[in-house]
Amino acid sequence: MPKVVDHDQRRVEIIEAAWRTIARTGWDSATMAAIAAEAGFANGALKPYFATKDDLLAAAFDHIYVQTGRRMVAATAGKHGLAALRAYCREILPLDETTRDEARVVLPFWHKALTTAHLAARHERAMREWRTQLQRHLSEARDAGEVRTPIPDEDIVGHLLTALLGAQITATLMPDLETAQTLTTQLDAFLELLRGPAGTSCG
Amino acid sequence: MPKVVDHDQRRVEIIEAAWRTIARTGWDSATMAAIAAEAGFANGALKPYFATKDDLLAAAFDHIYVQTGRRMVAATAGKHGLAALRAYCREILPLDETTRDEARVVLPFWHKALTTAHLAARHERAMREWRTQLQRHLSEARDAGEVRTPIPDEDIVGHLLTALLGAQITATLMPDLETAQTLTTQLDAFLELLRGPAGTSCG
Repeated sequence: MPKVVDHDQRRVEIIEAAWRTIARTGWDSATMAAIAAEAGFANGALKPYFATKDDLLAAAFDHIYVQTGRRMVAATAGKHGLAALRAYCREILPLDETTRDEARVVLPFWHKALTTAHLAARHERAMREWRTQLQRHLSEARDAGEVRTPIPDEDIVGHLLTALLGAQITATLMPDLETAQTLTTQLDAFLELLRGPAGTSCG
Repeated sequence: MPKVVDHDQRRVEIIEAAWRTIARTGWDSATMAAIAAEAGFANGALKPYFATKDDLLAAAFDHIYVQTGRRMVAATAGKHGLAALRAYCREILPLDETTRDEARVVLPFWHKALTTAHLAARHERAMREWRTQLQRHLSEARDAGEVRTPIPDEDIVGHLLTALLGAQITATLMPDLETAQTLTTQLDAFLELLRGPAGTSCG
């Protein structure tokens, strides 16, 4: 009986091997051969799945996006308003080994996206979706009276997402300066600022 | 009489040609030959100045850092506290064609710095200096009573710098979503949040 290959499964194995390799050795050293070796496949076994390294990078980005989305769903389950917003943002921040590795793949992705329109479009689609979700949690926090600043939601969401993307840089390039601890403290400080003028303190 | 070559001047010309070429065509397409052509020099004329493209990238980063620093000095001249902080931050944001081009060079620099320790060290040195300056302006704003939030300075400065770095990504990869206008509005919104509980509104 011929061996049955689960192509979807194999595709995921390759993608996971790709981002592990890119995270560990960097984009330039992560050759198709190195990624095949990491996945435990023969050289050339990647070609039927990914014709080029750029295709693989796009797939790795999608994979990270989907994984992050799953974590967001789990982290925000049962939470509302500011607590949900905080949990959501924490899943974007590079706070552990896995998410720091993801950041080390996202940086090469951004670099490539600068000159590759379809990668930039992919990034923008993902970011628009995150904005929508951030806005949803923020709205809920406003309704619950947790956020009282008069700053428009749009500016808060834009600023917050920009800061979360910036953390991919600071956490990977300045790991001594920006730790899981400092990034969490900074996020909490920003969310605290959103509470705005406390009505109660004025009587 | 032999032609006198101003080596410092030529070095700067090469660096400026490099960042123009990288910004326009991307890192991969910006070959030493393409950069030499942009500078108006013969192929091979770069070698005595920069042995490798990585050396040139490091020099381009330093050049951008120095140029940004000059703009910061000019923009903050005669300003104090929050106004100085705002002017300083605006020079980091990619708000015009020149600074967006700089962001398109900084992204490849960050990508390379992920796997090149001396580039990462260069980046960290620059960021530590920016932090010190942000801290200085923030301190002045506190002293002037313009910033009243109880959030510690360290968290504000860390968050602010992270957001300013993130803007290099959003402004280059999502130019329709993050314009000079939205980035400025978001910065102003954040600075407004720092004012903290307004004593006057209660009294």
